[in-house]
Amino acid sequence: MEPRRTTVEPPIHLKIADDIRLMIESGELAPGDSLPTLGDICEQWDCSVNSARGAISLLRSQGLITGGRGKAPVVRIPPGKVVRSSDRHQAEKDLAYRPEEERSKVGEAETNLGMSIENQQFSTKYEIVDAGTEIAELFGIAPTDEVLRRRFEATNEKTGHLLSYSTSYIPKVLIESNPALLDENNEPWPGGTQHQLSTVGIEIMCMVDQVTARMPTTAEAQLWGLPDGVPLIICRRISLDADDRNVEISDATYPADRTELRFVTPLEPWPEKPTPLKA
Amino acid sequence: MEPRRTTVEPPIHLKIADDIRLMIESGELAPGDSLPTLGDICEQWDCSVNSARGAISLLRSQGLITGGRGKAPVVRIPPGKVVRSSDRHQAEKDLAYRPEEERSKVGEAETNLGMSIENQQFSTKYEIVDAGTEIAELFGIAPTDEVLRRRFEATNEKTGHLLSYSTSYIPKVLIESNPALLDENNEPWPGGTQHQLSTVGIEIMCMVDQVTARMPTTAEAQLWGLPDGVPLIICRRISLDADDRNVEISDATYPADRTELRFVTPLEPWPEKPTPLKA
Repeated sequence: MEPRRTTVEPPIHLKIADDIRLMIESGELAPGDSLPTLGDICEQWDCSVNSARGAISLLRSQGLITGGRGKAPVVRIPPGKVVRSSDRHQAEKDLAYRPEEERSKVGEAETNLGMSIENQQFSTKYEIVDAGTEIAELFGIAPTDEVLRRRFEATNEKTGHLLSYSTSYIPKVLIESNPALLDENNEPWPGGTQHQLSTVGIEIMCMVDQVTARMPTTAEAQLWGLPDGVPLIICRRISLDADDRNVEISDATYPADRTELRFVTPLEPWPEKPTPLKA
Repeated sequence: MEPRRTTVEPPIHLKIADDIRLMIESGELAPGDSLPTLGDICEQWDCSVNSARGAISLLRSQGLITGGRGKAPVVRIPPGKVVRSSDRHQAEKDLAYRPEEERSKVGEAETNLGMSIENQQFSTKYEIVDAGTEIAELFGIAPTDEVLRRRFEATNEKTGHLLSYSTSYIPKVLIESNPALLDENNEPWPGGTQHQLSTVGIEIMCMVDQVTARMPTTAEAQLWGLPDGVPLIICRRISLDADDRNVEISDATYPADRTELRFVTPLEPWPEKPTPLKA
């Protein structure tokens, strides 16, 4: 990785961008406020129009402002964050034991999205495909072994933008004894994946979430309706059964400006109350 | 939030960037390879130099290439990812019960960074400060109540770049009965924070991690030595004691290109083996 060069006197557009960022952070410029015009910036910071443009462009790439490209830039209004908590894994597991009537009431939308289902359009696509090298390795199967690949998608009916997207993999051999599990027309399944797996005797005992982030591609930014400077959170969840086998892999992508992932880690108690321990 | 306008015919620089991205993803262009020159791009895609420059600039903002600004752009060599797993919370808790000799052997670096301590320079700064509105609310104390604020920092000795950075808060009233906990000269503390808290009778029973991501500011990109187009992962961890009180808040920042956060969620077993459940 190549570190940035550090210069004694930073270019003026960096200083301008930094000054404006501080104005945003201090609240001097509120969400929705217009930025100073190019002319104002040139006068106030005694710089060229190019430097003023460079500062605006940098603030946009940092996700602090929107507009531009013909529209006056304004301070971004941060969208509310949807919290997705790992608590729901246990809730979904408990639900798998409940009668179908009860399972049906808790919709996929509420358990998986944690948000109102208004204006959401869902689609699910099932396909039987070869595992491929990466997925096969995680399941301990051959790359040519078959897996059920499921794509879950929710879009905003009005804007057509993605709200939620994930791809899940399950080895076909684990679930083919129940043909209902291979048919996408049975979605949304009352009680979700953990109930589906329970019908073939599989109990999920542990989930491992692997989380990182990266910038979207141009196509992804369009699909999600992402402004410039907003990264995607990338999360792979591996579900393990009672025999410590990986039985499902789920790859999900979330827009970072609208998402908070929450993970709850309970700890085992100490074997006894600690009587004053030495430092 | 303002969605991007969708046009029937996307600008040529988007198409060029997309074509080159596919070449990178397919391996046709390998990490470290030079990109086609501006002249090559103009010829191959029949476009202006400005469009070629626009494509290169976009690929850089997406974190796919490095170089430029006078240097020839090359396909980024992705750095290895440091995995930070929530497993270490239980390991740290178990350690708090072990003799000091054993605790001393497991360095802060290994538990908190999961990487070799070679070439790392650590610093810790303790301060007693007012909680402030946001932190006070999480602790259920007054904004003017005092908290111990601790800043932990590890830098790469050679480059001076940050390797690890976090800020932690603990209400002073919880720990002041052991003055050793207020003195930064006792860092690195054998056994870490969970042992420190055990000396004042506090047992951590649960940790909640809140994870999101955003682009770095210019100053942050310089501190971390981040190339363009690499976001920061933002993680707030709240530690709860046996009385369900929030006793520590820890805010950490990680460069997304070098970090994978891993969270392990164990699930409670079903009350009994499910005999074939109805779909």
